[in-house]
Amino acid sequence: MTHPRYTRLLDSLPSTVPFVGPEVIERTTGQPFSARLGANENIFGPSPTALEALRQADAEIWKYPDSASHDLKSEIAAQNGIAPENIVIGEGVDGLLGYLARMMIEQGDTVVTSDGAYPTFNYHVAGFGGVLHKVPFKDDFEDLDALITRAAEVDAKLLYLSNPDNPMGTYLSGTTIADALDRLPKGCLMILDEAYIELAPTDARADIAIEDPRVIRMRSMSKAYGLAGARVGYALGAAELIKNFDKIRNHFGLNRSAQHAALAALQDTEWLAHIQSQVSHSRDRLSQIALDNSLTPIPSATNFVTMDCGRDGDYAAAVVRELGARGIFARMPGVAPLNRCIRISCGPDAALDLFAAALPQALKAAL
Amino acid sequence: MTHPRYTRLLDSLPSTVPFVGPEVIERTTGQPFSARLGANENIFGPSPTALEALRQADAEIWKYPDSASHDLKSEIAAQNGIAPENIVIGEGVDGLLGYLARMMIEQGDTVVTSDGAYPTFNYHVAGFGGVLHKVPFKDDFEDLDALITRAAEVDAKLLYLSNPDNPMGTYLSGTTIADALDRLPKGCLMILDEAYIELAPTDARADIAIEDPRVIRMRSMSKAYGLAGARVGYALGAAELIKNFDKIRNHFGLNRSAQHAALAALQDTEWLAHIQSQVSHSRDRLSQIALDNSLTPIPSATNFVTMDCGRDGDYAAAVVRELGARGIFARMPGVAPLNRCIRISCGPDAALDLFAAALPQALKAAL
Repeated sequence: MTHPRYTRLLDSLPSTVPFVGPEVIERTTGQPFSARLGANENIFGPSPTALEALRQADAEIWKYPDSASHDLKSEIAAQNGIAPENIVIGEGVDGLLGYLARMMIEQGDTVVTSDGAYPTFNYHVAGFGGVLHKVPFKDDFEDLDALITRAAEVDAKLLYLSNPDNPMGTYLSGTTIADALDRLPKGCLMILDEAYIELAPTDARADIAIEDPRVIRMRSMSKAYGLAGARVGYALGAAELIKNFDKIRNHFGLNRSAQHAALAALQDTEWLAHIQSQVSHSRDRLSQIALDNSLTPIPSATNFVTMDCGRDGDYAAAVVRELGARGIFARMPGVAPLNRCIRISCGPDAALDLFAAALPQALKAAL
Repeated sequence: MTHPRYTRLLDSLPSTVPFVGPEVIERTTGQPFSARLGANENIFGPSPTALEALRQADAEIWKYPDSASHDLKSEIAAQNGIAPENIVIGEGVDGLLGYLARMMIEQGDTVVTSDGAYPTFNYHVAGFGGVLHKVPFKDDFEDLDALITRAAEVDAKLLYLSNPDNPMGTYLSGTTIADALDRLPKGCLMILDEAYIELAPTDARADIAIEDPRVIRMRSMSKAYGLAGARVGYALGAAELIKNFDKIRNHFGLNRSAQHAALAALQDTEWLAHIQSQVSHSRDRLSQIALDNSLTPIPSATNFVTMDCGRDGDYAAAVVRELGARGIFARMPGVAPLNRCIRISCGPDAALDLFAAALPQALKAAL
């Protein structure tokens, strides 16, 4: 009997699934988590007006979404002082990273990122046959100079920088990034992943002209805006670059209610301020919990705190495992030396209480 | 200043956006539609339990979706007597068609479809550099024998067949399709798009073993189940084929509330029966409206009725335009000879009343 003929690239890709969500772990262990602190979700939740927008939009869920996301783009344009033509909306930043990799990467093309940075980006690059070059973090920061140097060495088409970064939670100043653009090698596009930018100090924001063809910025509705389940991300960039997404994207890929919720969430600046305050408080408390347990919290510009457990990756992995056994969903960086740490999401005090209670036992059990 | 370096393929793709949604038309004309009968949405709406599932899930929209869509897959598996490993869920059938094209098509690979069939499939094939070979409809039916013959001639990797078909609304018997599989050329995968299958006579369903590697079936939550805005489609096929989607798909691309709504919608078989009855009534009424206006309705196995206007494509296009000017959103097939027709979605009597009132004027104005 005849079998499908895949592309050579597909045949070469690994068939392991690198994305293990908490539900998958819960089903595997048969034990539900009592505190979901591993995925940097916003446990404080979205704006009440976003929830109300969902409720209203759900009544018209029989309609296809607006393929142009007109209203959502208009709001983003107004907030950022740019044109709708500078914005593309996608099925999360994940979806947009996939589209961008498809637009730029032919087999053998080179891409530079930090070793231990966002694995989903790497997944998409590899999925289009790109060759990844990884630069180590430097003192728990992404090393922009080294990234640029490496990009020049390997003639990279893409350079990925997250600011603030995941998984360490540190950030570079916007000035540092804007200044570095002039050193970016010719023909290299910087992907500036700002998924956590709304939770960072204001000096993290880079002042870059929207029509600058050297950069595309990624923004998320999943973090500060608390809409991770809605799957809405957006990218900001030069109109010519943004227009090219329309050549390949799933034009009707966005959930219609999610479009409405994202619009309402962006408009509720009061709720955003509330979340920023809650996250700030939560970061402080997580840092104190770390210190109370002789761990070293890394100063965070995000909605998580990465904690140095002071030993190797095996130990941190054991801590994550032991936390899991005690109902706490946590994650950790994937590569050394970052993997001496565990990473804990911010959340309401009730969730942090559970973490604070479990951590001493987990640390002991992991020894 | 340096510019991004796109792939050669991307540079070669057209930058026109082929997907004009009704909202885009409304914004262009400045006139909202009073009856939305052009996109084959299910205006009767989804099951009330699906709406209730949305409401409940929305409260946890801060959580990422289950990347494995475990519960939804379990229900689909149970309903179809197959395993979860035979199912992949995607961002609508559109999303799944895009993934499949990516899995199969390298530049220059050949694909066979019917001339005038689903343009989004063509878009995805072209988007990966595939070469489309189009076979004419035969008497308003997709011509399966001719498709198979052409597939053999051009060594096609993919053969696209929709059953029931869009845009004509006709169908082939399941037996015809199942029998044809033995004539499918070696190395050619049939995509059997069954987006409308729940609205078709039962003899449209093809009895094909789920592990048959020659076929992948596409199903939609957008038509009979009334969840077009949710963006949920699924594909059924051999486990080895289905597994390969995990190598490339956006693992967290599905809206979390949509997963819950789709599950509830599938479980509400009573509502499905209600919709089937409503659609059947609506088809009859649309056919009568066509006859009353000297148009020839084509017998439909879907939630739309395609009506032969008895002249050429220019005339049908004028009818669609004149309907639009009277607040009726309609569409029509894109190529001759199918484009002698207009295509009207089923809907509640109130919407059909508006269509019935506008049609005589539109037909006259289009002359």
